[in-house]
Amino acid sequence: MRMYDLIIKKRNGGELTTEEINYFVENYTKGNIPDYQVSSLLMAIYFQKMNARETADLTMAMVNSGDILDLSKIKGIKVDKHSTGGVGDTTSLVLTPMVAALGIPVAKMSGRGLGHTGGTIDKLESFKGFSVEMTEDEFINNVNTKKIAIMGQTADLAPADKKLYALRDVTGTVDNISLISSSIMSKKIAAGADCIVLDVKVGDGAFMKTFEDAKTLGTAMVNIGKSVNRNTVAVISDMDQPLGFAVGNALEVKEAMDTLTGKGPKDLLELCLTLGSNMVVLAKKAKTVEEAKEMLLGTIKDGSAIKKFREFVEAQGGDPTFVDDREKLPKAKYVVPVKSDRSGYVSKINAQNIGLVAMELGAGRATKESIIDLAVGIVLNKKRGEKVEKGDVIAYIHANDESKVEKASKGILENYEIKAEYKDEIPLIYDVVR
Amino acid sequence: MRMYDLIIKKRNGGELTTEEINYFVENYTKGNIPDYQVSSLLMAIYFQKMNARETADLTMAMVNSGDILDLSKIKGIKVDKHSTGGVGDTTSLVLTPMVAALGIPVAKMSGRGLGHTGGTIDKLESFKGFSVEMTEDEFINNVNTKKIAIMGQTADLAPADKKLYALRDVTGTVDNISLISSSIMSKKIAAGADCIVLDVKVGDGAFMKTFEDAKTLGTAMVNIGKSVNRNTVAVISDMDQPLGFAVGNALEVKEAMDTLTGKGPKDLLELCLTLGSNMVVLAKKAKTVEEAKEMLLGTIKDGSAIKKFREFVEAQGGDPTFVDDREKLPKAKYVVPVKSDRSGYVSKINAQNIGLVAMELGAGRATKESIIDLAVGIVLNKKRGEKVEKGDVIAYIHANDESKVEKASKGILENYEIKAEYKDEIPLIYDVVR
Repeated sequence: MRMYDLIIKKRNGGELTTEEINYFVENYTKGNIPDYQVSSLLMAIYFQKMNARETADLTMAMVNSGDILDLSKIKGIKVDKHSTGGVGDTTSLVLTPMVAALGIPVAKMSGRGLGHTGGTIDKLESFKGFSVEMTEDEFINNVNTKKIAIMGQTADLAPADKKLYALRDVTGTVDNISLISSSIMSKKIAAGADCIVLDVKVGDGAFMKTFEDAKTLGTAMVNIGKSVNRNTVAVISDMDQPLGFAVGNALEVKEAMDTLTGKGPKDLLELCLTLGSNMVVLAKKAKTVEEAKEMLLGTIKDGSAIKKFREFVEAQGGDPTFVDDREKLPKAKYVVPVKSDRSGYVSKINAQNIGLVAMELGAGRATKESIIDLAVGIVLNKKRGEKVEKGDVIAYIHANDESKVEKASKGILENYEIKAEYKDEIPLIYDVVR
Repeated sequence: MRMYDLIIKKRNGGELTTEEINYFVENYTKGNIPDYQVSSLLMAIYFQKMNARETADLTMAMVNSGDILDLSKIKGIKVDKHSTGGVGDTTSLVLTPMVAALGIPVAKMSGRGLGHTGGTIDKLESFKGFSVEMTEDEFINNVNTKKIAIMGQTADLAPADKKLYALRDVTGTVDNISLISSSIMSKKIAAGADCIVLDVKVGDGAFMKTFEDAKTLGTAMVNIGKSVNRNTVAVISDMDQPLGFAVGNALEVKEAMDTLTGKGPKDLLELCLTLGSNMVVLAKKAKTVEEAKEMLLGTIKDGSAIKKFREFVEAQGGDPTFVDDREKLPKAKYVVPVKSDRSGYVSKINAQNIGLVAMELGAGRATKESIIDLAVGIVLNKKRGEKVEKGDVIAYIHANDESKVEKASKGILENYEIKAEYKDEIPLIYDVVR
């Protein structure tokens, strides 16, 4: 088999066989096929596309290129959740304890933030002592005893995806549904999930800018899941404004705990219930999403969700008293209100740019090496559709470096669109693909 | 300027500016842009194509990537000729002395053969002592005094083309008219030509398999020529059977001299007159091709063509007595007839495979390092359309290694298609693009 022939076949619109896809992924990972042949194949795939079978084969070839987490020692159906990346997206922190409180095992691999989006591990480090470092055995043991554990990615999961993504990133071959969907799914499958609930964000702050594109991606991932025997559901949700109010690590942790105790933002709760109810149904703990939603709401009402969260934080070395006394979380020196210079209705909040403003305050990483400040960030005070009078506070800046406040304030004002009239037509949940 | 943006622009169907094309060619030649970005751009070009302006810009960017031969010290209009590569194609050896005999300067860079096609320099080395090694000054001086000189490619002409071609060859991005035409034209322009006559071969033995493809390529090259002020004519000619009878170095030299003295194969003479007459018109030595053809035929009739050839061989160190006594040319030990096993009409002679049979006898190079045997090859005895009885000699094998004869004989028989009836519908000259 020669890589050259695979390039020509795909270039001419042919369908690559399972063996051909395995050959290319395996040998590229091993360094036997040069980057320049792979980038040429990727561009041919961009134009000629891959069908569902090829996409599923590519996914599994990437899964098999490295370690695959063996979660067979965990009792029950393991459901993982993945978001394509948003701003102020604290769903994982809210969802996982609620689902775990229902007895569903949550064995989650999480990452750190980069650019305008935050990472679950960074957020959890707001708890003094919290750590995601543990052996695979400890991880499995924690899930079996507490039903919940989050670890950092230590195993060499889907190294082919890592290598291919780095190449796609510099050769103009990112934007292809088969390549995007197989990249996401390969990591989730290698992480050992039986079922997967995907949160596909759509809007200015997301990778997918339109509902159509997001739905196409969601459908492609659900199809991969079906092909490789991992039940998958994709929720298409809004990222045309940040989710909830808080953007920043400790700020989001506080908001997550508020939500777990029934005092959180409505949109965050609603999205968590949608994602969570699908997880509960996939785990076969409920027959319908309506029934599952009631069960999840029950964990808030009876206090079992926040109790589970406290238990989880403690099990991973975090100080559990932070859960009882939220004032102990990292706090910024300066909290500065940002006041509107106009009157009207908030018609748009550019999520990506708000994420970047928070990043510049220190809440996020500009590069992988950046050190983040857990305390800083932004708390929105007005969201899309709300009426604003000139002088009203639209957001609060939480900063440790006073010199950064002015620029941040300007950035927030610039990214709030305030109009005389507004008819909200953007739903929080666009669609659910099963 | 970033290579990444150029890839995205072309991928999305955009038109690259002159500056962008210069940036990419210059920096790729210098090693500032990695192969994997260039192969991705090339694949995007394969799908999105380049327009005439982009193609001309690419050509000139490649010309400017290295040395450009300065032939300004040569008086008159310098017309170069280029063939896309055929089997038994001795046209350069016939054409150049005829044209030079009319006082038109012929300053030619030639190459060596590879694979199934032969090279002019190899053929000329059949003359004892002949050499293409000379300084640029000697070359120019020879052209000014004798009107003809052939040198090997010593200067670093169009290095960008060399680098790009090597990459295209392994990344499935050869087959694009803009890339093929700019590659050929850049080398000719860098070699200093004022005008160019192209022989675009079509058929089984050629790179272009159909007339439509050959015409598209010819037209693209003529358009490049027009854009960059080099008058260019493309002749589309048949390569569905070898040209003339001889395939092999010394054998082709003998056939060329036979043609220069009026005793050569009809097809070889006709093609030479077509290509040559266009050269004469471009050099402004005749008003019409008809007039030019008469002038060229005159050089055969009055002996000035063969005289010019003798003068040229002598000027470059070759033994001129070989011209008078062709028995002195390298001769193979064995000349073995190949007899037809059927009766009928020759309907096809697979030119490429005949070239490969000759290569295996030692007439050509399988790799760049192979050493060729000037004496060996094949002389066809029957060509397309001729009647053959079982037992008739269809070709002669000239071999120095007796053990290779049987395989060659089998190879020749296999590549002669003999049918009960044949109506010849393939022209020698398909078209002339101006």
